[in-house]
Amino acid sequence: MFDRVLIANRGEIAVRVIQACRELGVDAVAIYSDTDENAKHVRLADEAYHVGASVARKSYLNQEAIIDVAREAGVDAIHPGYGFLAESTEFAANVAANDFIWVGPPSDVMNDFGEKTRARKIMRRADVPIVPGTTDPVESADEIREFAAEHGYPVAIKADGGGGGRGLKVVRSDNEVEEQFQNAQREGEAYFDNSNVYVERFLENPRHIEVQVLADHHGNVRHLTERDCSTQRRQQKLIEETPSPVLDEDTRAEVWDAARRGVAEAGYINAGTVEFLYEDGSFYFLEVNARIQVEHTITEVVTGIDLVKWQLRIAADEELSFAQSDVEPRGAAIEFRINAEEPSEEFAPMPGKLETYRPPHGIGTRIDDGVDEGDSIAPFYDSMFAKFVVHGENRDEAIRRGLRALHEADIRGVPTTIPFHVQVLTDETFVEAEHTTKYVDEELTIE
Amino acid sequence: MFDRVLIANRGEIAVRVIQACRELGVDAVAIYSDTDENAKHVRLADEAYHVGASVARKSYLNQEAIIDVAREAGVDAIHPGYGFLAESTEFAANVAANDFIWVGPPSDVMNDFGEKTRARKIMRRADVPIVPGTTDPVESADEIREFAAEHGYPVAIKADGGGGGRGLKVVRSDNEVEEQFQNAQREGEAYFDNSNVYVERFLENPRHIEVQVLADHHGNVRHLTERDCSTQRRQQKLIEETPSPVLDEDTRAEVWDAARRGVAEAGYINAGTVEFLYEDGSFYFLEVNARIQVEHTITEVVTGIDLVKWQLRIAADEELSFAQSDVEPRGAAIEFRINAEEPSEEFAPMPGKLETYRPPHGIGTRIDDGVDEGDSIAPFYDSMFAKFVVHGENRDEAIRRGLRALHEADIRGVPTTIPFHVQVLTDETFVEAEHTTKYVDEELTIE
Repeated sequence: MFDRVLIANRGEIAVRVIQACRELGVDAVAIYSDTDENAKHVRLADEAYHVGASVARKSYLNQEAIIDVAREAGVDAIHPGYGFLAESTEFAANVAANDFIWVGPPSDVMNDFGEKTRARKIMRRADVPIVPGTTDPVESADEIREFAAEHGYPVAIKADGGGGGRGLKVVRSDNEVEEQFQNAQREGEAYFDNSNVYVERFLENPRHIEVQVLADHHGNVRHLTERDCSTQRRQQKLIEETPSPVLDEDTRAEVWDAARRGVAEAGYINAGTVEFLYEDGSFYFLEVNARIQVEHTITEVVTGIDLVKWQLRIAADEELSFAQSDVEPRGAAIEFRINAEEPSEEFAPMPGKLETYRPPHGIGTRIDDGVDEGDSIAPFYDSMFAKFVVHGENRDEAIRRGLRALHEADIRGVPTTIPFHVQVLTDETFVEAEHTTKYVDEELTIE
Repeated sequence: MFDRVLIANRGEIAVRVIQACRELGVDAVAIYSDTDENAKHVRLADEAYHVGASVARKSYLNQEAIIDVAREAGVDAIHPGYGFLAESTEFAANVAANDFIWVGPPSDVMNDFGEKTRARKIMRRADVPIVPGTTDPVESADEIREFAAEHGYPVAIKADGGGGGRGLKVVRSDNEVEEQFQNAQREGEAYFDNSNVYVERFLENPRHIEVQVLADHHGNVRHLTERDCSTQRRQQKLIEETPSPVLDEDTRAEVWDAARRGVAEAGYINAGTVEFLYEDGSFYFLEVNARIQVEHTITEVVTGIDLVKWQLRIAADEELSFAQSDVEPRGAAIEFRINAEEPSEEFAPMPGKLETYRPPHGIGTRIDDGVDEGDSIAPFYDSMFAKFVVHGENRDEAIRRGLRALHEADIRGVPTTIPFHVQVLTDETFVEAEHTTKYVDEELTIE
């Protein structure tokens, strides 16, 4: 195992990685921006280094400063967390070029999954269902109209480098095609430095299902069952749960195996997530998240397997010690993202000082956070400052436990997503598991 | 299920029962003494009633005041927690006589286990190993000397109504017998209103192993595996773990089944614990705790079964919904009792204000507590204000996680047992699981 690991991140995921390091006996080296000088991840790390001003570009996205710290601190490896540089192929290559170990997939594999058309080709080779669409970039608006003539409207025009809804245009008729083709190209160029676009049948009302995988350097690939993340607003997940309440046992087994085949085909290494859309009983590959995800926690509580420690172990060349048959999920888990936002005002971020911060405790309740009482939520970064995870014998107990925990939480100084979560947990559509990814944006009236 | 339950307790166990009530949709009614007016259990309850002055005798032991509150609040049932009135046969009978449901075993069963000679007879009938000794009260010092002549010294003279070390005298030669016989009688009379004593072979260096059971009104009795509570000071448990690191699989299965047989023989109902001493590969019945225990938490995390909710369900006449084969413990768990005490000064209680209270969070970490930051630990009651429970894939991971969590905790204003726990977790005797109930008192030099 490594002696020292640098965590190129902040907030709750930096704290999470520090916890994993400490449990492995590895020194955790933190970085911080101006505003994070006394942040919780800095307090908990063995050492911490300043990397730049508060804006992410100058600190948590500042590759040069981070590599300098890694050299100065004499670390063996760099863990990127999620967000910031976690999916930067360039940074991963830069880390390796400077003789540090990258705690994540090899940069060429990240590259494969960074370009959607390439990812779709890999999945097709692995016989993973994909949404009908082109696997090569489209050259003209005519190609899109021809595709729509064959598969019907609506279709989605998607930037090849895109993700999280950026560079995605939904087209419902021939006469919208030309304009949205250009818009998608322009956004792809602006956000992802890649103007290529491709076209897909657009699923109107899908659920979001994803499968956690772990793969080591010794040819072992394991899935750790699925998560259902259909409670989203504008493609941002708010509540995640496992198991999915809508998949039957056969479909679950199929989607698990599809994910496993897909990452095996890609030569994937380390932790990753294969995302799918699910509609009318069928699932279709969406994208691979080549990193740890926010919602990895619910998989940990039902499987008893520590994903972040495995990320570090795999990076240190350890072999996965468990067989696929050892992965036995128990019970049901739900994660609630606690954001400093005003749900009733379109989830507007509301940074400020946490005057009171008393998260819930007790049975089946796991808290991951990046703050303590008295800390401030800075305006520069993501508004999520904590995750409440509940685990019960089944979905009903998890929902009741979730309501108990949300009720018990006492957070003042900033508005949070807690009232939203309470509303969802008591809403029949969610309780009956009839919600799709459109639920929050189009069906729910936020109180 | 009940509509309303009164919780005749305070601190972390009152909070624990409130959480169970809320998850069941039951109104939780709290009681409080003068000093507890703003305590956490009061803040979290649906309603709270004052019952008397701070000393327990006037509040949490005040049967009349508590029954009055139950009547005023219109509750269906009373949950006693542990300590205070939880093992009072008189109170249990009083609750039933006032037409409230007692969340615990029937008072006659409590009575059976309150008298050690009667308990030993039940266990003998159920073919549960007991330490060689008398099952009837001894009448004279001569009887004790005769017993010792047959079984050898040391022998233990024990008050029939005793427990927790009170009324227990160890005798190592004939000429000590007369005096200690009288001392044990006197203590039994003073503490338990029962001057009967009996005699047993004394185990010099045992481990403490106990088995959790649940039994319903429909004839179902289940065990929920064992706990190892050998880390004690003067018979007070400080660290508990499951599974026991010293039992082989055959002995585990034997002790589980012995516990199940014993409570079935007694007609036991609700949650209970059968305690054993374990020495040289053999286990011997010690006593039954006819209530929920402090350390029930570790059983919950490895089995996924909510014991306190089952207490309420069983009291409401529900049938246990799981078979014995459904009880599948996963991984290893350790509980650390966080007491306001100075370990280096013989664990002297140190009440005071919790200036800072930031318990650890994150993966595999469960917190049960009765306080928030800014609260005071009152001198009137038990010095334990929180329990940190860690859960890992195996004992090694649980120990590492425990150290991580204890390191992460930030508690100021009162000294705590945290440094003691860190010392134990890094001490070879504990790590190698070679500790017995004598470990803390006789082997460890508290730092």
